[in-house]
This record gives sequence, C-alpha cells and structure tokens, in this order.
Amino acid sequence: MQRMASLCGSSKMAAFNTSDYKLSEGTGSAQYDDVLPYKLDGEQKTKEFLMKVVEILLDFVKQTNDRNEKILDFHHPEDMIKQLDLRIPEEPLTLQQLIHDCATTLKYQVKTGHPHFFNQLSCGLDLISMAGEWLTATANTNMFTYEIAPVFILMENVVMTHMREIIGKNWRKGDSILAPGGSISNLYAFLAARHKMFPNYKEKGIATIQGQLVMFTSDQSHYSVKSCASVCGLGTDNCVMVPSDENGRMIPTELERLIMERKTRGHIPFFVCCTSGTTVLGAFDPINAIADICKKYGMWLHVDAAWGGGLLLSRKYRHPRLTGIERADSVTWNPHKLMGALLQCSTIHFKEDGLLMSCNQMSADYLFMQDKLYDIRYDTGDKVIQCGRHNDIFKLWLQWRGKGDDGFEKHMDRLMELSEYMVKRIKEQPDKFYLIMEPEMVNVSFWYIPKRLRNVPHSAQREQELGKMCPVLKARMMQEGTLMVGYQPDDRRPNFFRNIISSAAVTQEDVDFLLNEMDRLGNDL
Amino acid sequence: MQRMASLCGSSKMAAFNTSDYKLSEGTGSAQYDDVLPYKLDGEQKTKEFLMKVVEILLDFVKQTNDRNEKILDFHHPEDMIKQLDLRIPEEPLTLQQLIHDCATTLKYQVKTGHPHFFNQLSCGLDLISMAGEWLTATANTNMFTYEIAPVFILMENVVMTHMREIIGKNWRKGDSILAPGGSISNLYAFLAARHKMFPNYKEKGIATIQGQLVMFTSDQSHYSVKSCASVCGLGTDNCVMVPSDENGRMIPTELERLIMERKTRGHIPFFVCCTSGTTVLGAFDPINAIADICKKYGMWLHVDAAWGGGLLLSRKYRHPRLTGIERADSVTWNPHKLMGALLQCSTIHFKEDGLLMSCNQMSADYLFMQDKLYDIRYDTGDKVIQCGRHNDIFKLWLQWRGKGDDGFEKHMDRLMELSEYMVKRIKEQPDKFYLIMEPEMVNVSFWYIPKRLRNVPHSAQREQELGKMCPVLKARMMQEGTLMVGYQPDDRRPNFFRNIISSAAVTQEDVDFLLNEMDRLGNDL
Repeated sequence: MQRMASLCGSSKMAAFNTSDYKLSEGTGSAQYDDVLPYKLDGEQKTKEFLMKVVEILLDFVKQTNDRNEKILDFHHPEDMIKQLDLRIPEEPLTLQQLIHDCATTLKYQVKTGHPHFFNQLSCGLDLISMAGEWLTATANTNMFTYEIAPVFILMENVVMTHMREIIGKNWRKGDSILAPGGSISNLYAFLAARHKMFPNYKEKGIATIQGQLVMFTSDQSHYSVKSCASVCGLGTDNCVMVPSDENGRMIPTELERLIMERKTRGHIPFFVCCTSGTTVLGAFDPINAIADICKKYGMWLHVDAAWGGGLLLSRKYRHPRLTGIERADSVTWNPHKLMGALLQCSTIHFKEDGLLMSCNQMSADYLFMQDKLYDIRYDTGDKVIQCGRHNDIFKLWLQWRGKGDDGFEKHMDRLMELSEYMVKRIKEQPDKFYLIMEPEMVNVSFWYIPKRLRNVPHSAQREQELGKMCPVLKARMMQEGTLMVGYQPDDRRPNFFRNIISSAAVTQEDVDFLLNEMDRLGNDL
Repeated sequence: MQRMASLCGSSKMAAFNTSDYKLSEGTGSAQYDDVLPYKLDGEQKTKEFLMKVVEILLDFVKQTNDRNEKILDFHHPEDMIKQLDLRIPEEPLTLQQLIHDCATTLKYQVKTGHPHFFNQLSCGLDLISMAGEWLTATANTNMFTYEIAPVFILMENVVMTHMREIIGKNWRKGDSILAPGGSISNLYAFLAARHKMFPNYKEKGIATIQGQLVMFTSDQSHYSVKSCASVCGLGTDNCVMVPSDENGRMIPTELERLIMERKTRGHIPFFVCCTSGTTVLGAFDPINAIADICKKYGMWLHVDAAWGGGLLLSRKYRHPRLTGIERADSVTWNPHKLMGALLQCSTIHFKEDGLLMSCNQMSADYLFMQDKLYDIRYDTGDKVIQCGRHNDIFKLWLQWRGKGDDGFEKHMDRLMELSEYMVKRIKEQPDKFYLIMEPEMVNVSFWYIPKRLRNVPHSAQREQELGKMCPVLKARMMQEGTLMVGYQPDDRRPNFFRNIISSAAVTQEDVDFLLNEMDRLGNDL
C-alpha cells in the first residue's frame, strides 16, 4: 500500500506550525467587524479567512491519513493548558489570531480518523460525510418545521423509511426520528413504550398505575438503558439486569425467571431491551427467544442496535445476529458507528406510526400552528422532547447516495473480514496474545502477554497480572502517540483490551502494525 | 449601505445552477472508493471534491448576504419532492452527482442567515462560528473523555467558567455542561433538582417519596418545562402553569397561592422555573420575587434564560431584566440564540458543583475507568444522560475569542436598539401597524392592518379579523420569498406577528424593508 509521507513532508506535525498559515496583511490584522455580515464590503476578507481555515482542515485530513504521523501529542491536562491560550478576552482578537487558534486546536487534537486509532466504537473520518457536515453548518437550520428545513425534512423521511424497510418489510409504515446519540434514542423508545401501554401516564404520572413499573436489560447492555429508569422515575433498582452467558448474550430463561419474580411481587414488567452488539464484547442477544417472552407477557421489545445495526446492511453477517429484529417494537441504530457517518447521527425507529407524536406532543402554539401554508404533517418538532433539533440527516444522506446500499454492504463485510483477520493473527501468536473469545462482531477482546508471563500457565492469577498491565501499556501507546486501543474490566475478568475496527481506513497491514506495536511497547512489562 | 448585487450577477439563484459546479473529468466520474481513506492515492480527487463543496458553500454565503436574493424558493412538500432526487440507490453515484446534490439541496433551502429572515429565535449566519463548526466536523470527536477530546474539554471548562462568572460571582465553583438544545438543558436542571432534594430517587424511584412531586412554571414558559413532567413521571397535571400578567410575566402572588394550594392537598412542591425571555413575548419573570418564594418554601429555582441569557452580556440591558439571576440554583442559556452561535449550542449551569455527576453517573466501566493515564476528573461523559456528546464548544469559543466580551456587548446593544427602532417605526404608522405591547426584548408583537380595517376602531372583533389575516400574509411572504416573520396566537389574543431581530446582518434599512414589504404584500387583504 502506498504511503503518504511524500505528500506531507518528513517532519511530524509540521503542518501545524502556526507560521504556515498567514493571512494577507489587510485581512490578518482585521477583526470580526470587518467580515460578513458585519461589513458588506468584507466579502473578500471573509472568503480569505474561510479559505485559510479550509487549508488547515485539509492539512489535518492529510495528516490523519498519513501513517507516519502520530495519532496524538499527549499532554496531561495541567500541562496541556500551559501549551494553549484558551482565555476569553475582553477585546476582540484579530482574524490572524483565530487562524492560529484553529491550527493550534488541531495540533493537539486526537486524530480519531487515523488508521491506528482503534479506541472507540466510532473511528474514522469519512470525507463525504464530512463534506455533508460542512454543508449542514452553512445551512444552519433547525429540524423542527418544514417551514425552515424543507429539503432536510423530506430527506429525513426518505432515509428513515429506507432504514425501516431494511429492519423489516412490515416496518414501512412506522415512524422514526434522528436523536442526539443512542442514549437519547433509547430514551425515546422507553417513553413511547410507557405511553403506549399506559396512555394516562403522560398527564397523570405514576398516580395512574397501581404497581411498580419494571424494565429488563442484559448485564452487558449500554448504561443508557439503566439511565432511563433513573430519569423517568422508576429508579435504577427497577431496571433489572438479566445475566448473560459467557459470550455476553442475555440468557432468555433468566429473563423469564426474573419477570416472574417481579410479577410475584406485584410489579408490572413492561419493557425489555435486547442488545444487538454490546459495547464491550460486541455480543448479540437472541432476539427471537426474547421476542417470544415479550409476546407471552405482553411486554414492549426494544432492540438497541446502536452498535450492531450496521450489519443489517450485510447479507452475509446480518444473520443470525439480527434475525428476528423485525419482531421488535422499536430499534435504535446509530449510523455514526459502523456506518462511519460523522458524529452525531443516531436513529430510533418504531413499528407503529403516531406514537412519537402522541407521546411527546406538547402542541406549542407558536411553532406548530394548525393554519400554516403547507401540510403540517411534515413538521417533526412536536414528536420529540427536544425543541430545536440539529440537522443530522444531510451527512448520512449524502454518504448513502455516494455508497449506495452496495457500498455499505461492502464496507460492513470488509470491517468484519478485517476483524476475522485480526483474530487469525492473534491465534497465530499464542505466546504474545490471549484471545478471550471468538467475537461476533468487530470487537476483539484479548490480553497482550509480556515476556515474563509467556511461559506461565493461564490462570486467574495470570489474568490479574495481565489486567494490571493494560493501563500501563495504554499509557505508553498514548505517550508515544502511535496507537490507541481501549481497555476495560468486565464482570468476569480484570482489565483486557477491546479492539474496534470500524474505520474504513484500516487495512490488514494496520492490523499487523497494531499487534507488532503492542509487542514493541509492552514486551518488557 | 453598499449592495452586493454586483458580486452575484443579476439572475436570482443563478449560483445554484448545477452546471456551474463541474469537477474535472477524472474526478467527476470517480466514486466514493476513489477518495480518501479508501484509496491513498485519492488525495487529489478528495481535495478537488472538498474544494468544490466549499465553492458551493461560499456561493451560498454570498447569496445569504445579498438582499436582492430571495430567502427561499417555496414549494409545497408534494411539489418539492418532485423537484428533488432524494432516493437511496443500490449502486454508488459519482462524485459529480454528489456535488450536484449539494448544490440542489442549498438551492431549495431557506436562507436562515438572510437579513430579511426574522422568523425564529435563531436567525443569522455567523461566519466565524461557521468556520468553527467546519473544524468541529473535521475533528470528529466525542466530548465524553479527555482521552479523545483534550483541547475541547479544556475549552469547555474555560468557557463554562466564564459564563458562570457572568451569571454571578458566587457561581465560579459551580458546574456546567453543553446540551443538545434548551429543552434538554431544562431537563438536566429538573433532574439535578430532584436528585438534590430526593437523593434516593435515582435508585428507588417514586417509591421513595410519600406524596406527589409538583413543579411550577409560567403559562408563557417554553413547552419543554412541561415536557419534563411528562418524561420524568410526574405527569403534566403536576406541572402547574402559573398565570402571567398582561406583559407575559409570571405573577409571584399567583405562584405562592398555587404552591399553597398544592401543599394543602399533601403534594410536594419542589421546583420553580422562572423564564428570562419568553418565547413569544420576550417577557422576563421577576427573578427576585420568585427567588424569595423559593427560599421561603425550600424549592429549587431554575432560570430558563435560553432566550434572554445573551442580555447578561450587556451592562445596559441586563438590568432589571435579569436582576437576581445569581440567586438561582440552575440557569439555561443558549448561545445559539441571541449570541448567534451556530445550531446547536445550549448550556446549563449549576451553582453547586458535583450534582450533575452524582445525579447522572452510571459509572460505565468501559469508558470511565479509574486507572487511566490522566486525571479523570476531566472526563465529562458520566455527568450526562447522553453517552456520546457532540462538540458544541469550539464554534462558541472561537466566536468569543474573535468578539471578546466587548464585541458581544455591542452585539446585544445593537439588537436591542434595532428592536427599539422597529417599535418607533411601528408607532409612527398607527394606521398600518398595531403594537401589542412595549417589548422587553427583541420580540416585537404586532398586527399588520390592511386598508379595509384602517378606519375601524380597535376591538375584539377587529383583532379576530387581523388574526385571520396572519397566515394569509405569511403565505404570501413565503411564496414571494422576500420576507419571513413568524406569527402565532396566545392565551389572550388570536394570531399576531412576532418579529425577532437576533441576526447581526439586520440594519435599520432592513427593518424599514420589513414593514414596507408587509404593507406591499398585505394591504389588499
């Protein structure tokens, strides 16, 4: 694979030497009041300023894609603050200073799109999606009414319908919305479920129900599910954590046992969250078995596929992981994860139309008038607990136009194949790496084994030792700036590494680099 | 004032003739897979594509600032969908098609930054903030940890501390967070209040309390306050709407009466929302009087200054409107409104530090490990009910650096003076305009009077007639595309116009244009 060093020069971070970004004399010394819209003859200065910002951004993009560049230039917070001038001044600063500020900010920012950044569920910098986000910023509108976001509202309809059709054929006439992150998407599911089953709750609150509402989710699920119980008044004690098997999948018989236990206490089980792609292990709860239980007890089935949802686009990997998803009542699916849309882009889908509106509608007269010029069914603002809603659709729409369904399918297959390659490479080096389980997704869980532990039989004692090393090795990665991989403990084991391949930039060579670099940095630990 | 027509050519919308935006032959026919990061030798094509998008955006900016350009090209949804090709294809489209898509999208988008767009609380297109948002997109990171957003996290600390100091000297050691819109900011205030007063609620829920929780807000407040009652399980019946006076300000004696009434019923009043800048009338509830009542009854005082908060930056206009705000427990303040930051940028501030964390913390092991390389007090993710959080700080920080406190003060004074000018011009034309009240802010509420109603004495009957005209006149504005002003009814009167001056682009000439244009479009109604 061709390296890009030649495009970037040899010195690291050179592009963010502030002196490289000079505005012309007249513009550099100019200030805010000298540009549009403050001064109409400021068009030229405005353009020069914006083009200089774009130059910085393009250099950052170039560096992000350059494997010879560091991912980050780490400093502790107390040191970092000394590198930066972050203060808010009384007097305006010049445009040249703002240009300097932009370059400095990016100089110290972590390059989450670097091919050696494997640290979060959202890795990568998709440049078509980025172009979409630039346009979104410039359009600077709000998604609450057709009146001020006509094209974007129609786009949202088209893309959301397409996503629902991918979830299931019987979903076409459902409803969807984009929300600020998967946690809020899950909250929308919870609210719709409560409203559907207890329609007086909206006005009367808890007083309308005789008995304690209870929800269920696996002990591996995202913490936002439990957070719903706190926010919405159930209390986290009434979000029951269902045990998972050794691969991190909810155990359906345990779910049923716990439902019965709560029923015996006079509680009202009403909501089950089934996770498709858990955060740490990438596990898929068995949807069909859980759907059977929900049906038996008349409970709402929510599938949190924030992470795993992207695999719906792959004929090869969709099944058996997401088999049965069409039986759910609601589905969270974050395009900003596997699909690589820029942050943020999260969607929540409902099989039944009208619930979002009846659940969340507050009928503000000033915004959702009934006597408007156009068909007000296109206004979306009254469906959500937000008022203003950021335009998160354009970047996804543009990306999807550019890739087509086929392109996204190839992208998913490629991420999965790279993960399989990583597993293969780990297995080929059993002295250096310990694979914790066969992954179902792009989460690869493993320990790195330093020299001194290579000839020690694997035991709980060795796991403790390996676990203690994770933060040390991670610190070395960050200080060197060459690699970022996440680690965490879970209920069954101490710290272990969780590698994520969700970036389109990653190649097999990058996977090899990752394993070699861990060994280089950690073999003496 | 110099017009910009010469820069734009004479034909309207000409810049969004697709044929103006041509990629070179090799790039135009290229696809997604031919650009970075898919193909490392795709750097040139990537750059050409991105620069073409920037060209489109700069043309849009130019048109937005051109008073000879229309604000919008209105089409009903069913017609609009025929103008557009929004479908998601199976096969990838070319880069040239994506460029065409960008141009077409902006061609039909409403120019919310146009000097004749007076329609929402957020008007204008601040170009420094826009540059900030472009950078934010390119940095593409998440605000939950210092690990992946070091500079942005420190920036957030600096700007939030500065904002708290502006709220009150005793606020410095408090806590703040950026949230996706004022509604979610208000929700954070509600949650913190409930947690502070009933710390077991988080785990035990409603079962921990003997009695019904009740909250209070004025009948003019934003609907998101009532929505908290629905979301969090109180039920909207337990969000008491306190009557306001004829200027839209909460009546403190009514607040106290309603608190007593609920206490008599054994309820637990715990939360009062005081609005600083109501959505429709721009009214300011009397903070000191309300704070006295909150103190007397041991209730949490939240000030929703999402809209009016910007006036804290003006020595001239801060008092008496926001006098006493330092007595609040929490304050919502949206820089994306009066301060002109791009959408979205909303902040919530607390006088007491630590509440956000203890209230919302779920302690996810995988993200907020205790054994990290750096001081984990800088991680913010566990303070919020979101997990991922969009970076909304950079655009505000860059803007504030460029303006300084002084620049923002001038901006606020200018918006208020322009509103005063508008009121003066309305009063000078009593035959054509009816001023509903002296505004406290940039919301100017009025009726336009067509010829046939000019010699009719003002009465409830005439108000009904004037109200019926609002949607018709608004429809004409949108169809002509020359002007956008909002209208709505309220509890006391039928439809009336609410004009907002929150854009830095507006001049006295634009105010004159607005009034003349309404007369041109509406005199025969």
